[in-house]
Amino acid sequence: MRAELIDGKAIAETIRHEVAADVTRLAAHGIIPGLTVVLVGDDAASATYVGAKEKASKAAGMQGETLRLPASTTQAELLTVVERLNVDPSVHGILVQMPLPSHIDPDTVIRHILPEKDVDGFHPVNVGKLLIGHTDGFVSCTPAGVIELLVRSGVDTRGAEAVIVGRSNIVGKPMAALLVQGRAGGDATVTICHSRTKDLAFHTRRADILIAAIGRAEMITGDMIKPGAVVIDVGMNTKPDATKAKGTRLCGDVHFESAVHVASKITPVPGGVGPMTIAMLLRNTVRAAERTLAVAAR
Amino acid sequence: MRAELIDGKAIAETIRHEVAADVTRLAAHGIIPGLTVVLVGDDAASATYVGAKEKASKAAGMQGETLRLPASTTQAELLTVVERLNVDPSVHGILVQMPLPSHIDPDTVIRHILPEKDVDGFHPVNVGKLLIGHTDGFVSCTPAGVIELLVRSGVDTRGAEAVIVGRSNIVGKPMAALLVQGRAGGDATVTICHSRTKDLAFHTRRADILIAAIGRAEMITGDMIKPGAVVIDVGMNTKPDATKAKGTRLCGDVHFESAVHVASKITPVPGGVGPMTIAMLLRNTVRAAERTLAVAAR
Repeated sequence: MRAELIDGKAIAETIRHEVAADVTRLAAHGIIPGLTVVLVGDDAASATYVGAKEKASKAAGMQGETLRLPASTTQAELLTVVERLNVDPSVHGILVQMPLPSHIDPDTVIRHILPEKDVDGFHPVNVGKLLIGHTDGFVSCTPAGVIELLVRSGVDTRGAEAVIVGRSNIVGKPMAALLVQGRAGGDATVTICHSRTKDLAFHTRRADILIAAIGRAEMITGDMIKPGAVVIDVGMNTKPDATKAKGTRLCGDVHFESAVHVASKITPVPGGVGPMTIAMLLRNTVRAAERTLAVAAR
Repeated sequence: MRAELIDGKAIAETIRHEVAADVTRLAAHGIIPGLTVVLVGDDAASATYVGAKEKASKAAGMQGETLRLPASTTQAELLTVVERLNVDPSVHGILVQMPLPSHIDPDTVIRHILPEKDVDGFHPVNVGKLLIGHTDGFVSCTPAGVIELLVRSGVDTRGAEAVIVGRSNIVGKPMAALLVQGRAGGDATVTICHSRTKDLAFHTRRADILIAAIGRAEMITGDMIKPGAVVIDVGMNTKPDATKAKGTRLCGDVHFESAVHVASKITPVPGGVGPMTIAMLLRNTVRAAERTLAVAAR
């Protein structure tokens, strides 16, 4: 038996179409959702991500802009840029691309973004609303994307044993907060494992839904997975591959070749969680724009 | 073998002394930490809690005040009171006693409190800082008190299997957020169980640290506890007792009589977690006052 693939690319495509329809609807009210991405420095990987975000937002009919600032930008200068975007009514979503150069404190920058425009969902106000269970904030894109993958693949999370490996602020912790809420896509019994966990395999082997967000290439092998489990691989790592021109290839935190024979459903890498992140970013931006409309209508 | 009692009353007493010493130290800087509790209506239990908070803050040398507002107070009136306290420099901590009358939305009120004065730790900003792992917010008093009980009783949480029963915003969720952080009193592998959990006893039986915060009298019995586990009982329920004048007595979520023969350490009810809540409230208020000093010194 081979696990069914959860096709993140196709699901993300569906969401992008939904977003494009929302954009059309908003246009009738004279609103074009605007997403501004701020990139400091010239990290190659970051430049690629940022380019993809701008392109995707434009493809959805949104106003996508990228501000490219030199690596020498001071923290004060960056905060001034953020403040300008905070008050710009044509900008509904602000995303400061991480990582920032080491002379800038990322937390200070994140806290400066107006929570109503924090479409990355990293501001403490939005993280707090997420844990409390309020839905008027923004949920960070990767965990929100994972929930969408589960729900749209017909996975029932209610009462399921969900085990998350990894406790990062970007994935692990918000993932746990989402899965434990008492609503659709939640209601799971949630366990968070991490580097201090004594018997990781004990937990992964009892998971109905296993979410790997560790950042270590192919660490979760098939023998660590419960037969029939749903496996979501958030990892984005590289491993040596002599058949490729650059000598490496992309892989996840899950050893796909062994896991695919044990799981009932599994996300591939690439083409699983990855495409969802940008789709959820677009959706958050449209929601930010919708909320300004709701405020104006009061 | 009988479990060692975790004496919350004694530990709370120690913390109150520490707080009183901090108050003396702040007095040298001309600061008297001020805690204002707002009570709306005349719920008897709330009046008792509020009285205890005022008394405890005064005993620690702080300025403890209670604003008693009639049950007919409108939401707008209450928000005006909160706004006045927000800008009053002699008030470092604001606590609006829950529950509020049904015509007032508690979330709206909580969000109105200045996060820097939200010593109850319920504002989304403070909840978010807690989950992220930032220590410049306020942690809600009961879960913060549980961590203090564990740390001061010499319980090593690192790598421990911590199982929390209950997912409330007051206890369960912030408790999980604290225990999973990578620092002292954290680093546990954390599982959150709740009403949708399929096999509760499976989880409670594998817990090195079991935290019961369900609100159901004596639901966790000795046979559901791992021999040698540390059991923290957050419950505050009543059960029939013909030997008492009022016909009932206080009990926790844990069936103490059976659990005490299985656990290695256990909190009694009353005298366990209960006394810690007010002690942590005082500590949060002193911290709020200290932070105004730190800001003034800049």
